[in-house]
Amino acid sequence: MTEQLSKKGEAWSARFSEPVSDLVKRYTASVFFDNRMAKADIEGSLAHAEMLAAQGIIPAADLDAIRAGMAQIAQEIESGKFEWLLDLEDVHLNIEKRLTELAGDAGKRLHTGRSRNDQVATDIRLYVRSAIDDITALLTQLRSALVDLAEKHADTILPGFTHMQVAQPITFGHHMLAYVEMFGRDAERMADCRKRVNRLPLGAAALAGTTFPIDRERVARTLGFDDVCHNSLDAVSDRDFAIEFTAAASLIMTHVSRMSEELVIWMSPRVGFIDIADRFCTGSSIMPQKKNPDVPELARGKTGRVYGHLMGLLTLMKGQPLAYNKDNQEDKEPLFDTVDTVVDTLRIFADMAGGITVKPEAMRAAALQGYATATDLADYLVKKGLPFRDAHEAVAHAVRTCVDAGCDLADLSLVQLQKFSPLIGDDVFAVLTLEGSVAARDHVGGTAPNQVRAAIARVRSQLAM
Amino acid sequence: MTEQLSKKGEAWSARFSEPVSDLVKRYTASVFFDNRMAKADIEGSLAHAEMLAAQGIIPAADLDAIRAGMAQIAQEIESGKFEWLLDLEDVHLNIEKRLTELAGDAGKRLHTGRSRNDQVATDIRLYVRSAIDDITALLTQLRSALVDLAEKHADTILPGFTHMQVAQPITFGHHMLAYVEMFGRDAERMADCRKRVNRLPLGAAALAGTTFPIDRERVARTLGFDDVCHNSLDAVSDRDFAIEFTAAASLIMTHVSRMSEELVIWMSPRVGFIDIADRFCTGSSIMPQKKNPDVPELARGKTGRVYGHLMGLLTLMKGQPLAYNKDNQEDKEPLFDTVDTVVDTLRIFADMAGGITVKPEAMRAAALQGYATATDLADYLVKKGLPFRDAHEAVAHAVRTCVDAGCDLADLSLVQLQKFSPLIGDDVFAVLTLEGSVAARDHVGGTAPNQVRAAIARVRSQLAM
Amino acid sequence: MTEQLSKKGEAWSARFSEPVSDLVKRYTASVFFDNRMAKADIEGSLAHAEMLAAQGIIPAADLDAIRAGMAQIAQEIESGKFEWLLDLEDVHLNIEKRLTELAGDAGKRLHTGRSRNDQVATDIRLYVRSAIDDITALLTQLRSALVDLAEKHADTILPGFTHMQVAQPITFGHHMLAYVEMFGRDAERMADCRKRVNRLPLGAAALAGTTFPIDRERVARTLGFDDVCHNSLDAVSDRDFAIEFTAAASLIMTHVSRMSEELVIWMSPRVGFIDIADRFCTGSSIMPQKKNPDVPELARGKTGRVYGHLMGLLTLMKGQPLAYNKDNQEDKEPLFDTVDTVVDTLRIFADMAGGITVKPEAMRAAALQGYATATDLADYLVKKGLPFRDAHEAVAHAVRTCVDAGCDLADLSLVQLQKFSPLIGDDVFAVLTLEGSVAARDHVGGTAPNQVRAAIARVRSQLAM
Amino acid sequence: MTEQLSKKGEAWSARFSEPVSDLVKRYTASVFFDNRMAKADIEGSLAHAEMLAAQGIIPAADLDAIRAGMAQIAQEIESGKFEWLLDLEDVHLNIEKRLTELAGDAGKRLHTGRSRNDQVATDIRLYVRSAIDDITALLTQLRSALVDLAEKHADTILPGFTHMQVAQPITFGHHMLAYVEMFGRDAERMADCRKRVNRLPLGAAALAGTTFPIDRERVARTLGFDDVCHNSLDAVSDRDFAIEFTAAASLIMTHVSRMSEELVIWMSPRVGFIDIADRFCTGSSIMPQKKNPDVPELARGKTGRVYGHLMGLLTLMKGQPLAYNKDNQEDKEPLFDTVDTVVDTLRIFADMAGGITVKPEAMRAAALQGYATATDLADYLVKKGLPFRDAHEAVAHAVRTCVDAGCDLADLSLVQLQKFSPLIGDDVFAVLTLEGSVAARDHVGGTAPNQVRAAIARVRSQLAM
Repeated sequence: MTEQLSKKGEAWSARFSEPVSDLVKRYTASVFFDNRMAKADIEGSLAHAEMLAAQGIIPAADLDAIRAGMAQIAQEIESGKFEWLLDLEDVHLNIEKRLTELAGDAGKRLHTGRSRNDQVATDIRLYVRSAIDDITALLTQLRSALVDLAEKHADTILPGFTHMQVAQPITFGHHMLAYVEMFGRDAERMADCRKRVNRLPLGAAALAGTTFPIDRERVARTLGFDDVCHNSLDAVSDRDFAIEFTAAASLIMTHVSRMSEELVIWMSPRVGFIDIADRFCTGSSIMPQKKNPDVPELARGKTGRVYGHLMGLLTLMKGQPLAYNKDNQEDKEPLFDTVDTVVDTLRIFADMAGGITVKPEAMRAAALQGYATATDLADYLVKKGLPFRDAHEAVAHAVRTCVDAGCDLADLSLVQLQKFSPLIGDDVFAVLTLEGSVAARDHVGGTAPNQVRAAIARVRSQLAM
Repeated sequence: MTEQLSKKGEAWSARFSEPVSDLVKRYTASVFFDNRMAKADIEGSLAHAEMLAAQGIIPAADLDAIRAGMAQIAQEIESGKFEWLLDLEDVHLNIEKRLTELAGDAGKRLHTGRSRNDQVATDIRLYVRSAIDDITALLTQLRSALVDLAEKHADTILPGFTHMQVAQPITFGHHMLAYVEMFGRDAERMADCRKRVNRLPLGAAALAGTTFPIDRERVARTLGFDDVCHNSLDAVSDRDFAIEFTAAASLIMTHVSRMSEELVIWMSPRVGFIDIADRFCTGSSIMPQKKNPDVPELARGKTGRVYGHLMGLLTLMKGQPLAYNKDNQEDKEPLFDTVDTVVDTLRIFADMAGGITVKPEAMRAAALQGYATATDLADYLVKKGLPFRDAHEAVAHAVRTCVDAGCDLADLSLVQLQKFSPLIGDDVFAVLTLEGSVAARDHVGGTAPNQVRAAIARVRSQLAM
Repeated sequence: MTEQLSKKGEAWSARFSEPVSDLVKRYTASVFFDNRMAKADIEGSLAHAEMLAAQGIIPAADLDAIRAGMAQIAQEIESGKFEWLLDLEDVHLNIEKRLTELAGDAGKRLHTGRSRNDQVATDIRLYVRSAIDDITALLTQLRSALVDLAEKHADTILPGFTHMQVAQPITFGHHMLAYVEMFGRDAERMADCRKRVNRLPLGAAALAGTTFPIDRERVARTLGFDDVCHNSLDAVSDRDFAIEFTAAASLIMTHVSRMSEELVIWMSPRVGFIDIADRFCTGSSIMPQKKNPDVPELARGKTGRVYGHLMGLLTLMKGQPLAYNKDNQEDKEPLFDTVDTVVDTLRIFADMAGGITVKPEAMRAAALQGYATATDLADYLVKKGLPFRDAHEAVAHAVRTCVDAGCDLADLSLVQLQKFSPLIGDDVFAVLTLEGSVAARDHVGGTAPNQVRAAIARVRSQLAM
Repeated sequence: MTEQLSKKGEAWSARFSEPVSDLVKRYTASVFFDNRMAKADIEGSLAHAEMLAAQGIIPAADLDAIRAGMAQIAQEIESGKFEWLLDLEDVHLNIEKRLTELAGDAGKRLHTGRSRNDQVATDIRLYVRSAIDDITALLTQLRSALVDLAEKHADTILPGFTHMQVAQPITFGHHMLAYVEMFGRDAERMADCRKRVNRLPLGAAALAGTTFPIDRERVARTLGFDDVCHNSLDAVSDRDFAIEFTAAASLIMTHVSRMSEELVIWMSPRVGFIDIADRFCTGSSIMPQKKNPDVPELARGKTGRVYGHLMGLLTLMKGQPLAYNKDNQEDKEPLFDTVDTVVDTLRIFADMAGGITVKPEAMRAAALQGYATATDLADYLVKKGLPFRDAHEAVAHAVRTCVDAGCDLADLSLVQLQKFSPLIGDDVFAVLTLEGSVAARDHVGGTAPNQVRAAIARVRSQLAM
């Protein structure tokens, strides 16, 4: 094979003028990005070789030679000494050629009963599986950090917004837990996606299976796969898992973008709800006073990147006839960049959560503006017997009066309040406080501080599992 | 409330000149598309009312009045007599206003302890859950139809293609089973998505929960939800499930587009592998001889539609601060159109599978062109002791000779074949037949007819569950 | 033809059981959405018929009959009396069948020398051209309204933000003019796109041209096209113009989304820079005090819709072989919805611009917070001879001192200021005022009020053209 | 500044533990991808410096020092000796710091009157402008190569397909010219986009303009810009041009994907219309007989990549408040990758056009299958006086007879043909030949060989301009 692969290079250079040849080579080669799958490639090859030996397809001595050769290759790659050659197109041929140099005929026998089509499909799945495990761990870290922040502020009141208008008082702990829920669903999706990633394509060979008496279940067990892919054509052409993974990653970035948007707004001086530690911010080249929340802004921007990769992958697979087409080589870069983006972003956000300083006074001041307890007054009236829609209308009139007078509901006297409904009594004022309002929303999922603490306990017990 | 809602209309018309008012109303109203959630809205309201009564928040008589009113409303909608009013914005207010006409104060009390924010979130989830169940059933139908087709052609040989070049012989049954696998994964994803859809937002009220002593678990049980949403802010702002559903739908359409591409190519006269029943085709307004495979072409085109909806929903949620914003109203139309597109497409494909006529002679002729059994010859040599890479090279030379001579590998004499390797013996010719080739790929996932039959049995037992 | 088309319906119903037949019909038919091109279809047919008559391909009497028939059809459509039949698939066959009823053989001769492929391509181009003209007019209206608002506030100071942090003082007029520039580029793009839309496909027939002696330039002139499409295959398969239009529309929506984001933030109570007239806002079903900026929120949400259509159309055309495929029928709905969305949004925004109330005190208060004039101090030092980077550093120290002291730069005494640089003199205080700061940015594109007024004059003269 | 920038690095490392610091640095830095704008950055800085000197804002000696320093920096970068530092974030600060080392205070004065916000906006525009010019030249090369191929095959007949079914005979030259039209529109779009790219943001400074008496028109002239950006807020925040460019690039890739799809199908053995030179193809690791059209497949796959970048950029800008936000840093990588992808693809396609070998016999054989001249027969009948719709129906019956008899229309005798219409005479057989059919479509845009030659002449004269 050494000669053949070398001759391949020669053949190419013989056929067309150098500059163009280089362009075609560069255009079609994947080695400079797919070499990040080298570890997976070696792992997969070893499992394949071990099965070939166990089935008697290659002699035991070949397996030994392959193992020794691969160990050395792994070390060469680790230490940066491995020479990646454009002429050998991809990570698979680069490693196989080196193996053949080191292990001779044993190396040439490694490819028995497989093809690059099922080999690359196996490598990517190993890579994505590992990425899913990393991301799952980082989601846990981030959720932990947010839960810690939530606990610290289980009683800190800020206005809850809808339509960016003050709606009702909530606690900051409750707000943080909303993100804990989102990132929790992300972890669920990663786990679900993992099930479909974790099936072995190897054995599909080029597209139809192989004539050798292979044992696919054995390879699956060795590599920790839950199952084998049950149709060889599907096995080599399927990239569902890449799309499903990127879709799940897109939702992670959606959540990151929403949190980032809030952090940026909260840090804006007119709002001033929080400060973010300097190490996540930068200054300006022209305005000496600036402290910009670079990390959340950039994370928000990176959302587009991952959405774009999802669209790219979907487009890639649209209308592709079976089985393998070269188009599929384009699956890797978007996948790799998605993994990098999500991993870096989650890591930095898990750290940044601890760098958020909450400013309770600013939050409280904001909550006192905008009639945040109007709903409480309406609920009060309902409990006194007024139908909800009538209560809603009575309070609307009270709010209008306050708007005109430039005061809050709690600033009205009992007499004034009673103009809007005779059902109002002395006990109304407890209802109109921020603390009264949040404490009253005391059911599963509600913003009451003890519900927040219960939710924290629930999440912590999940995270500990 | 009757008056209030009517007055609302008046207030609007009083405030600005008619033409513009109408535009704003039309721009912001959702009633003409969200009324397809009417059934879910009524179902959700009844569960809410029942809980309110059970908790003593409303009297039992109110519940009776609400039930009676809703029964009549359901009937009015069913019979097309219900009058949907643009002035009442959406399905929720339209139904509530009619209920108040029918049930008086009981109707006005229905909205106690909830808000349109958690109400609409509940309705959409009920709608999507039902769509998932429909789609799952249709995926089963389609897979059944494809399995039937696969069984009929478990032995029918056609060339397997990679890069649209003849690769190795496969069976048509095996090819159909590749799609059965794809649509099987789609069903898995729908099931996974359903878990996250099937959580109850109701009780989150506007964003913070409610001050009434509600029982969310009871409502969840009544409506068949697996769990409640554990954070009220998240409950009203979460549209993950819509995105996850549309992503899963996009993969369904990806598979449909791939199958369509193949059907269109296969029906092209130079290929001529299949015919599609007339009822899925149309003619031409100018070319009298044409029979066009309209259905698969259109289905392939509709892929873009669903991808587009996915992109639209992701964009919608990107960077949205908590909790509810009006932007979210835009979740419905893409979701509804995705459901319609996927449901119609699957239904029609399940039917069309039975309308595919296979032309075995054309398939066989194509398989005999392109040296489809070259890999078998290489495997033969490996089994005789040649390392795989050397065998590969020997066969490449044999193929080149055939190309020059304009013949197939099986047309070469033993003497001629032995020029490429002395290991070749008389037994080689069995290996070079199409039947020999497919029969030899006899392992899980391989194209051998008995593997195809085993796979069919496996899928059928799954589908029967 | 009447019979033929009727028979077609019969043939279908004869071939397969009703429920399925209806589904296939509904799935493949376009008449219920493409009938909005009826006016364009009639216009195109009349131009075609006139050319056929002028070329002697049909007799003059036929042209008269076609004209009379089409006039009646146009009226029937206008008055809602025209019966659109699903069995006749699309707008073209529906109109042609009715024409044949009204005009007999003349109607049957209309399709001479054309095909539905070039007919529909012509219709869509006429439709898009008209949409471009509408949108261009609306962009002018919106820019006019924004220019009026800018003029009113050419001197109103607010903080300019970068990274949502206070950067430098600007004027509200200047800020509005940024959007005027954006919508101006949108108009340019529409004009550029129009050039490529405005080429005539008719005459391409099915894909190869026709054997009749047609005069395409004549038809182009009649229909106001600038040129004919120069290749028949391209003419029937090209949907570039739809994609280019939707891409330009996506940029309009990008600008709308940015403006909406700012309006929503500005109307949030902690910021309070503006109020939006009630008629663009709505209340809450549960919180009586709410006034929500529904229109900008919804417009922001609708951005995703148009992005999605762009993605859908790109996906549609990806990898389509020439010439016409049924996939292309899917070009219409995204295109129509894009037009509706952009037209409605621009119309409502042009109106809403006049409904924005600016709150100059809130803006001023915000500008005084955040050291907005720090750059001015740095520039002052540069003018006194300090290199820019050194000046930047000196001011950074001054700002830090102010942050610690809780005061503004203008609050420091001359002596205090001189600690940061001995170059600072008495004249520094004029530089540190908001008015001094904006007035000093007095060059083309700068925020100085007289530059804002010059820009307004420039735009107005453009708009008047 | 040297110290300041160094201290910046120190400050960071002082503030937070190393591993995280490195992550934040890497996450927010752009230097390792934006250094490809170094040439543009230097060019822009020199134009700025020259203007500063001309306006007396910096002394002439500073300009000399800046010029000398920049010349050395350019050389260092060219020769690979320039040390890019992560600590200095981006290309701008890296170059500025080095300049300050080389030119002292003159270097520190360079940033007078500008900001990184307008600097980076200028750099990207210079970069995109240059990319547009490259792409325009490559589009010309590709169109030239396709025109050459078209000329060679102006008379070569193949079946024109609609719905992948044989429609009418066309010439291969005509088919190639369809792509020439598409790539011609791409060049138009690039030219239109260039107008909007070619406006100078410099002078906008951070967002509001500068207090220095700058001369923006002078800088614009020096850098070859057509105009200045007329609003400073818009100038620093606008990324329309990046989106418009990527949208135009997406259409280029759409066309590439369509051509690739056809090349792949045409090279498939059952079709066999063409062969592609070996240098654009590769073999298989398992199937020795394979020759795969890698380049067109990969190009088709790369379409998704560019679509994805477009979606990414749109998402990036959606809902961004003015003026500059860090999100915008994410504009570069998708833009750069789009340029690389389009440039490489066009270059390789221009070369590959010359490597396409046409197989006229296979094309002819295919054209003779499928009743390609049925329309000609219908047109013949119309010319004899039958209304088009009736002629269409008569021919449909003739085709059905042929289908049943397994023969072509030209195989029917005159007597047989006359059964379908008595209008048929002896002259019909000329009409039913492939040559007669294509020659008859003899109008602008038609497939007749002399129309193809006229179109070639027209395009060549355009390309020569």
